[in-house]
Amino acid sequence: MKFSRPYTIKEIAELIGSAFIGDPSLEVTGLNEIHRVVSGDIVFSDHPKYYRKSLESEATVVLINNKDVDIPEGKGVIVCDEPFTAFNQLIEHFSPLRLPTSMIGSQARVGEGTTIYPGAFLADDVVIGKDCRIYPGVVILAGTRIGDRVIIQPNAVIGSLGFYYKKREERFERLLSGGGVRIEDDVEIGSACTIDRGVTDYTIIGRGTVIDNQVQIGHDTQIGKKCLFASQVGIAGCVNIGDEVTLWGQVGVTSGITIGDKAVVLAQSGISKSLAGGKTYFGYPAEEARKKYREMASIRVLPEIIEHLQLDM
Amino acid sequence: MKFSRPYTIKEIAELIGSAFIGDPSLEVTGLNEIHRVVSGDIVFSDHPKYYRKSLESEATVVLINNKDVDIPEGKGVIVCDEPFTAFNQLIEHFSPLRLPTSMIGSQARVGEGTTIYPGAFLADDVVIGKDCRIYPGVVILAGTRIGDRVIIQPNAVIGSLGFYYKKREERFERLLSGGGVRIEDDVEIGSACTIDRGVTDYTIIGRGTVIDNQVQIGHDTQIGKKCLFASQVGIAGCVNIGDEVTLWGQVGVTSGITIGDKAVVLAQSGISKSLAGGKTYFGYPAEEARKKYREMASIRVLPEIIEHLQLDM
Amino acid sequence: MKFSRPYTIKEIAELIGSAFIGDPSLEVTGLNEIHRVVSGDIVFSDHPKYYRKSLESEATVVLINNKDVDIPEGKGVIVCDEPFTAFNQLIEHFSPLRLPTSMIGSQARVGEGTTIYPGAFLADDVVIGKDCRIYPGVVILAGTRIGDRVIIQPNAVIGSLGFYYKKREERFERLLSGGGVRIEDDVEIGSACTIDRGVTDYTIIGRGTVIDNQVQIGHDTQIGKKCLFASQVGIAGCVNIGDEVTLWGQVGVTSGITIGDKAVVLAQSGISKSLAGGKTYFGYPAEEARKKYREMASIRVLPEIIEHLQLDM
Repeated sequence: MKFSRPYTIKEIAELIGSAFIGDPSLEVTGLNEIHRVVSGDIVFSDHPKYYRKSLESEATVVLINNKDVDIPEGKGVIVCDEPFTAFNQLIEHFSPLRLPTSMIGSQARVGEGTTIYPGAFLADDVVIGKDCRIYPGVVILAGTRIGDRVIIQPNAVIGSLGFYYKKREERFERLLSGGGVRIEDDVEIGSACTIDRGVTDYTIIGRGTVIDNQVQIGHDTQIGKKCLFASQVGIAGCVNIGDEVTLWGQVGVTSGITIGDKAVVLAQSGISKSLAGGKTYFGYPAEEARKKYREMASIRVLPEIIEHLQLDM
Repeated sequence: MKFSRPYTIKEIAELIGSAFIGDPSLEVTGLNEIHRVVSGDIVFSDHPKYYRKSLESEATVVLINNKDVDIPEGKGVIVCDEPFTAFNQLIEHFSPLRLPTSMIGSQARVGEGTTIYPGAFLADDVVIGKDCRIYPGVVILAGTRIGDRVIIQPNAVIGSLGFYYKKREERFERLLSGGGVRIEDDVEIGSACTIDRGVTDYTIIGRGTVIDNQVQIGHDTQIGKKCLFASQVGIAGCVNIGDEVTLWGQVGVTSGITIGDKAVVLAQSGISKSLAGGKTYFGYPAEEARKKYREMASIRVLPEIIEHLQLDM
Repeated sequence: MKFSRPYTIKEIAELIGSAFIGDPSLEVTGLNEIHRVVSGDIVFSDHPKYYRKSLESEATVVLINNKDVDIPEGKGVIVCDEPFTAFNQLIEHFSPLRLPTSMIGSQARVGEGTTIYPGAFLADDVVIGKDCRIYPGVVILAGTRIGDRVIIQPNAVIGSLGFYYKKREERFERLLSGGGVRIEDDVEIGSACTIDRGVTDYTIIGRGTVIDNQVQIGHDTQIGKKCLFASQVGIAGCVNIGDEVTLWGQVGVTSGITIGDKAVVLAQSGISKSLAGGKTYFGYPAEEARKKYREMASIRVLPEIIEHLQLDM
């Protein structure tokens, strides 16, 4: 998330009522969750295990719950008991919840030749390109940018809130969603798909990717060009998928991993770790298909083997 | 389902045109399906295999297709050829289908600070607490009670009809849905989730539970507090889930079972029998993860073993 | 797809600006994709591997990218560089996209006793029978025919575009959807289900079939009578399912296969090839359940066997 102007660390610290360490005139230009952080960003870190990663990231300022950390040259920290909550305060400040009063936001921008069917909902800041078709029941929430010639079929949801919580004693505290969804040209999205917005950055569906019905895509996941995802695929948050990747029906993808260009994953597989591109995968956990096929053939003869061995166990 | 006043067994029998056995002044105060029956209830039983269970349950009156059963002291039976159909007649009588004429039912009650986005549907008797957000395309049907600070994301469906049929020669006969859904405080429900109402009682989502997109929860399932369900989890009807249970993506749960507090079930697992709390489970059928991991490691070496044994089969 | 009157091969060739071979007065009465082709139809074929299949099918005219094929007696071909694209041109011509301007199409026909809830969308040419209930958020697109006593629960989508593409160098080219969905009497469809229309013919849900929430059914799939599909089942396109077939939760079915009458497939199974009727199946790939159970029992003892063998590998 980019701010409308640069802010000093002093201004930000005052906004959330916290002390800071560093040059008071140190400037920040946005905020991001650690997966997407760039120079000029504020990030948060609330566990000693991740202090170093945050301080050594591209972030310029870290919200942190420890004042005795080594701060790299040219950076600063804002010290607060609950960095997660403080980060939420900033998201709320810079991206306040706006309550819509009509199905089509009065400031939503829709390109020439684009059809918005009756019964679709567009939040106020949504931008849609040319020659798109947005079917009935589609809900497009804040922070969504859509290219040209995009088809979104009925009852798909674009830009819902990410499933990202901190478990507190009393309840789960939600990380607010200040990011968006970017859908590039020529993308087609099936009925009843759900695509969550990024928490601070964009969830991205690359140019020409086609997605069947009931597919789930988590927050901050970035998908390359010309991918094909069959029905009921579920992709968690913070996943990076290359170009021309094929995921067949009901495949599940865990969070934070990477799938290389032109990988093909067969139906119902479960992807629990990163996969190199250009190969075909299968099973749970998904591995190269020929290896899995060999295992499956072995299992098939296993009952006979056991009988044959007449093991005295 | 509770009646607005007590009825005598005689009144109920007349309503459905059937004979009864027992004290004509015996009073009933509601009706329930066998999973949820309490004292004062009417229940139905149409198979000799379940006669005893019904007669010895908490129910006060049993709709039954056999007049020669032993009736416990203080109870009564209503004798009819088709108890299932008679039960449906009573649900229809006491909870008649009401056809809405507007997106927001004129008698729906919504608490202070709650936002109902444009494009959401609320049935007439829905009650929603304070500071909730109900996003566009959410459909909330009859019999739903929602607490405070609840978030329901776009296109989720709350209170749809349970998937509960009796297979007849000619067709499936649906058990009507006279129950509801109770969503407690601080629950968050993802986009395109579907939560069926109870057939006579409540489907319950306990306080502080958070549910990702495209999760299915069947009729009469009761879920504890502070659970976390990832995307595309499917939970059948009549399931009992404790507190702080975690189900990862695409897990499936069969009907009628129990999952103990703090159980964790890994992605894509299939739960086919009850699970004790406090442990981590995996696979189909879901078993303790370390056991399953050991099996998976064995399968991995199986092709080599078979080669090594050079079995002459 | 049937035309409103017969057309000559000459007229069709002129429509798409292509040459033809055959009797200029040869008449066609409709068009179909190869899975559904009948006499009088135009079909397309763009790969030498399938030339023969198309030419020897029931089709009367084949759009083809080769002028040197043997044309059976009484048939004709239209020669064009891109038969897929030419076929799309014809679909577009004979079934032009009509943009709706209201939630209920002005020419949609709805039978007596049928309730259309507020928030449902009906395309202009939709026909619905008597005593149906169409819940809020249901989207019914062009080409849908619905019988009597049908229930469609909230946010289900009927008639969305099929997931059928040709992969081009630059992008996926969609095969347009000129077909429809036929839902027979007494069918019940759960919340958030998605049923794609046929590309040229009907996707069919047979009489009395009941479908739970979040079920996906692909284009041109034809389902028999009195089937029962539990929640989150995913069925690809061009599948043929018999009568009284039961698919339990989260089952996946690959495209183009056949499942026989009264087959039962247990939860989470993956069906990758045709299944004979009357049996119970399980696993991935789905096979007879008793065989799979035996394999599962073997896997369970595998770790002990490996230990017992003390293999020196």
